[in-house]
Amino acid sequence: MGPLRFAQFGAGRIGAVHAANLGTFGETQLLHVVDVNVEAARSLALRHGARVSSAEAALADPNVDAVIIASSTDTHADLAIAAARAGKAIFCEKPIDLSLRRVDTCLAAVRKARVPMFVGFNRRFDPSFAALRDRLARGEIGAVEQVIITSRDPGLPPLAYLKVSGGKFRDMTIHDFDMARWLLGEEPSELFAFGTCLVDSEVARVDDTDSAMVVMKTASGKLCHINNSRRASYGYDQRIEVHGAKGRLLAGNPTPTTVELADATAVARDKPLHFFLERYGAAYRAELAAFVDAVVNRTPLPVTADDGRRALVLAEAAAKSARTGRAVRLR
Amino acid sequence: MGPLRFAQFGAGRIGAVHAANLGTFGETQLLHVVDVNVEAARSLALRHGARVSSAEAALADPNVDAVIIASSTDTHADLAIAAARAGKAIFCEKPIDLSLRRVDTCLAAVRKARVPMFVGFNRRFDPSFAALRDRLARGEIGAVEQVIITSRDPGLPPLAYLKVSGGKFRDMTIHDFDMARWLLGEEPSELFAFGTCLVDSEVARVDDTDSAMVVMKTASGKLCHINNSRRASYGYDQRIEVHGAKGRLLAGNPTPTTVELADATAVARDKPLHFFLERYGAAYRAELAAFVDAVVNRTPLPVTADDGRRALVLAEAAAKSARTGRAVRLR
Amino acid sequence: MGPLRFAQFGAGRIGAVHAANLGTFGETQLLHVVDVNVEAARSLALRHGARVSSAEAALADPNVDAVIIASSTDTHADLAIAAARAGKAIFCEKPIDLSLRRVDTCLAAVRKARVPMFVGFNRRFDPSFAALRDRLARGEIGAVEQVIITSRDPGLPPLAYLKVSGGKFRDMTIHDFDMARWLLGEEPSELFAFGTCLVDSEVARVDDTDSAMVVMKTASGKLCHINNSRRASYGYDQRIEVHGAKGRLLAGNPTPTTVELADATAVARDKPLHFFLERYGAAYRAELAAFVDAVVNRTPLPVTADDGRRALVLAEAAAKSARTGRAVRLR
Amino acid sequence: MGPLRFAQFGAGRIGAVHAANLGTFGETQLLHVVDVNVEAARSLALRHGARVSSAEAALADPNVDAVIIASSTDTHADLAIAAARAGKAIFCEKPIDLSLRRVDTCLAAVRKARVPMFVGFNRRFDPSFAALRDRLARGEIGAVEQVIITSRDPGLPPLAYLKVSGGKFRDMTIHDFDMARWLLGEEPSELFAFGTCLVDSEVARVDDTDSAMVVMKTASGKLCHINNSRRASYGYDQRIEVHGAKGRLLAGNPTPTTVELADATAVARDKPLHFFLERYGAAYRAELAAFVDAVVNRTPLPVTADDGRRALVLAEAAAKSARTGRAVRLR
Repeated sequence: MGPLRFAQFGAGRIGAVHAANLGTFGETQLLHVVDVNVEAARSLALRHGARVSSAEAALADPNVDAVIIASSTDTHADLAIAAARAGKAIFCEKPIDLSLRRVDTCLAAVRKARVPMFVGFNRRFDPSFAALRDRLARGEIGAVEQVIITSRDPGLPPLAYLKVSGGKFRDMTIHDFDMARWLLGEEPSELFAFGTCLVDSEVARVDDTDSAMVVMKTASGKLCHINNSRRASYGYDQRIEVHGAKGRLLAGNPTPTTVELADATAVARDKPLHFFLERYGAAYRAELAAFVDAVVNRTPLPVTADDGRRALVLAEAAAKSARTGRAVRLR
Repeated sequence: MGPLRFAQFGAGRIGAVHAANLGTFGETQLLHVVDVNVEAARSLALRHGARVSSAEAALADPNVDAVIIASSTDTHADLAIAAARAGKAIFCEKPIDLSLRRVDTCLAAVRKARVPMFVGFNRRFDPSFAALRDRLARGEIGAVEQVIITSRDPGLPPLAYLKVSGGKFRDMTIHDFDMARWLLGEEPSELFAFGTCLVDSEVARVDDTDSAMVVMKTASGKLCHINNSRRASYGYDQRIEVHGAKGRLLAGNPTPTTVELADATAVARDKPLHFFLERYGAAYRAELAAFVDAVVNRTPLPVTADDGRRALVLAEAAAKSARTGRAVRLR
Repeated sequence: MGPLRFAQFGAGRIGAVHAANLGTFGETQLLHVVDVNVEAARSLALRHGARVSSAEAALADPNVDAVIIASSTDTHADLAIAAARAGKAIFCEKPIDLSLRRVDTCLAAVRKARVPMFVGFNRRFDPSFAALRDRLARGEIGAVEQVIITSRDPGLPPLAYLKVSGGKFRDMTIHDFDMARWLLGEEPSELFAFGTCLVDSEVARVDDTDSAMVVMKTASGKLCHINNSRRASYGYDQRIEVHGAKGRLLAGNPTPTTVELADATAVARDKPLHFFLERYGAAYRAELAAFVDAVVNRTPLPVTADDGRRALVLAEAAAKSARTGRAVRLR
Repeated sequence: MGPLRFAQFGAGRIGAVHAANLGTFGETQLLHVVDVNVEAARSLALRHGARVSSAEAALADPNVDAVIIASSTDTHADLAIAAARAGKAIFCEKPIDLSLRRVDTCLAAVRKARVPMFVGFNRRFDPSFAALRDRLARGEIGAVEQVIITSRDPGLPPLAYLKVSGGKFRDMTIHDFDMARWLLGEEPSELFAFGTCLVDSEVARVDDTDSAMVVMKTASGKLCHINNSRRASYGYDQRIEVHGAKGRLLAGNPTPTTVELADATAVARDKPLHFFLERYGAAYRAELAAFVDAVVNRTPLPVTADDGRRALVLAEAAAKSARTGRAVRLR
């Protein structure tokens, strides 16, 4: 088999990351870049020896084996459906869509076309989180009992973004819901959430929240907590703590350097890396490599469209719980 | 004024700690030890130059200025009421009682007698937790937004104890509820709790839980999470994390030594101190010193009977929420 | 046997520490306090129920079993000799004397009198250093190969003190030489030292140094490094690192609390404890307890007068090496 | 100016690293690969679109702007001289040569040809070490007083390698001597070294040492310590500690992940990265980028051939000191 050939939708910040990573694999090739911003598409295509195309042309090209969907969220589902119909393997940024109904339509099309569809839950590929889960799987702490996920962004996105984001639970916490499912090894059966506005009261005016705490329970009684904030002045705070019958595994925040200053004031170390591009650089590369590997070798994908759907179900439940002040039963 | 003279009720494990601490203050004197276990009372009295007395005799002694109530929980309220009527200052181990009604009766008697009553929420006096709160108060991280309390015991107590403990929320989480109130600087207005049995299924048979997650919200939208387990195989896990507008303060677990071993396997440090007697040794001494200081100088107590009551209200709400699966509104 | 009864010489800062620790053992009693500063002696004696005496009277008292010598360095040897002749067990602050000749005279008197003589190398009783050595002894890192000792004071003592201190190697590094011998498990056979003035040029005017680096080798080729400074603006820096065939053991600096602040600048923890009274509080208590225990039970002392002598030999060699720029062969 | 075009000598492990890094810069091109192992040369050339050439052909090619010398140590000086005569900019792996005389000959040729020559002291480009030095330069700890360098390899190289390595001081410690000069900001004026065999007695049979401790002093009295071992069972131990008038800066060992396991035994974290390829991956890339940048922009090199010479002078002095047991005065 020759190299895996790609068309990429979206030439923005994340698109640039995926295209650059593709270029380091050797056994892949980027053929088309599609973006409504033609200038961005041209620049990215030029850098990676691809051509600027329309979505139709890219999907009609029989040389294209796979697509990367990194365009704006509202286009994901339609592009995935079209790619599925064209028989292309799909790597889709999260979320598939903000509407569960549309996600279901998309998944039906993908199932029907029997193409593999990967959802970009990059955190599963973070070296520390991946190592933590491997060690859970090896039984280092026995049966999982409680999972605690800290997930705090360094700063509030623009209000214009928040308005179309689907709300903090669908936009931000969805990653944490995926981590929770992945680490609990069992689906949550009940969920309660508080969402409040502590960072900026403008957030309430676009009917969103900037701070949240979620608790979940599984059928067997495992517990999970997620805490979120849109502002962590000290950088991107992404930590996991898993308590099992025989011990505790943590994964903390990596730092730019190991330098430590001791002076008359304190002993000070680096803040965590600033945000997702810094923190998850290795994860972005690893997730795309995992996708390529699974498609080339026809092995099961490590994250599927169904995982994307299930995380969205939890996000919707959290939004509902936060709105109503009541626990939500799942399934 | 001469030394502050004490009668002590309870000559068990915690009673021994308090009596020993009293002996180091210089300006205090232990006159009476009262315990249904006469042998324990005799041994403790002998060690500290006190005499064994009945509760009645001890409270009738006009030389007694203050009492320490460290007997079994079911005797706290009655002893506090009797001590209040006798005009003694009261240092009472938590909880005042497992029944809110009886707590209210007790508090009414104390208020009527106008005696000071301190409730032994020792954790407020832990050097790290106290330093954290001082730094909050100095504004180091701006306005408090979220509080996360990890509180995990090293091992399950005997089932016989659990049966009379009032349940995990009243027995164990009550400390965390006090910490939450103390750190949030605002009363919780809503609470949701999950309680499950993951450590030992026998716990369910005595109608209790061994694992729990609580979330709380205040009127202004501040959030708090508490996680509990009756088993942390690596020792007593007592950590606090406070997120504010300008940063984050953590207080971690102290360790017996600073020794670190690097070998072909890992880089390993000490586990946390084993349990409350080791971890909170300094806190037990500091809380009693604070009581003595406030009584001698007629200054306000840093922890009051009302704090004891409010923590119990939260514990009852948690028990109710865990039982019903619904959020509980407070006040 | 009744309680071990003490006379104490020296009512200064360290004397107060020892007297207070004695008071916590129960099975000991302080009978006499001797100090040229009668006011200090009176105050200390009063606090511990002892009486102020002359050295002669204290040593002539047949009820005195043991002495604590915590007076000024120039009196240690004479007092130890007199105590030995009076048949008292001796706990002597380091150094025995600044002159090796006088130390030898003292040790001869002690040997002749067959009384136990303990030298106060308190660091051996620091919980972290003691745990490190126990773990070495248990073979956790195999055979010891290299020892690295960091020993830095928070600030320069007064020049008046430096003038009579015997020089940095005898006054400060002598502790590190004792640690080196204790950890290497083998006597150094060769030593090289640099001593310079970096903190304050006035130190050079009293013919002393404020900064030093020492390296030592044993007959079997084990290596040891010591670094010293009279100024560590971040507190008392006392660390040990031992490299063995199978790994590395470190002991770091304990801190007042476990609090950590993350803000827009850095992640900051406490500085080390300020100086020896804070850092070695537990060690001072443990060393005196070990002395009492050995005297009462007639077991070998864990630190002997000979250990004091050997550390002084190394200090003299270091002073000579730093002065001459040449390595010194020992023994 | 077009891309900077390279010939590379040496297609071994480090050669492969440099060639791969070149390929990521964009503005560079690899034209020739030269190696006596034709198979290795062919494989590397193929991977990077270069051709296999003889040294003569590569240097005669007028399209070649610069050379990377990553062949065996004994060829460095001759290749550098030939490259200098051909007018090529030179990136040379350390050491330039094991003989100071030959280094001087080489430097004379380079000076005469007025070509830039960079010596690959990769550690200066390690993100943590580079950040530490920047912070020194910014005055965060005031004037530098003491530098402590820990430099320990994970395991002994083959004896066959040791025989031609020039000895531990020239082969291994030379990196630490460069770090020392770079951090002290002043040349050492006096040096003392112990070298012993603790890891493997076979090392003594090839007249080398596997363990060492060095101390150095500068004219102004600054001090530096280096400790080395050929075996650190817990991984590559590369740490720096700098003490200044106002504080201390440390740079520690990075780890593969941030995962921490707490169980009934201990709280365990990752060992350091295994060896130089893992630890200094970013440094290798950054040093080559710095070379390219300086050559392209005709700015001064951050590490020069003279730095290579001075580190060798210190290595020779250390070997002499360890052999004679005497301090060596420099300059």
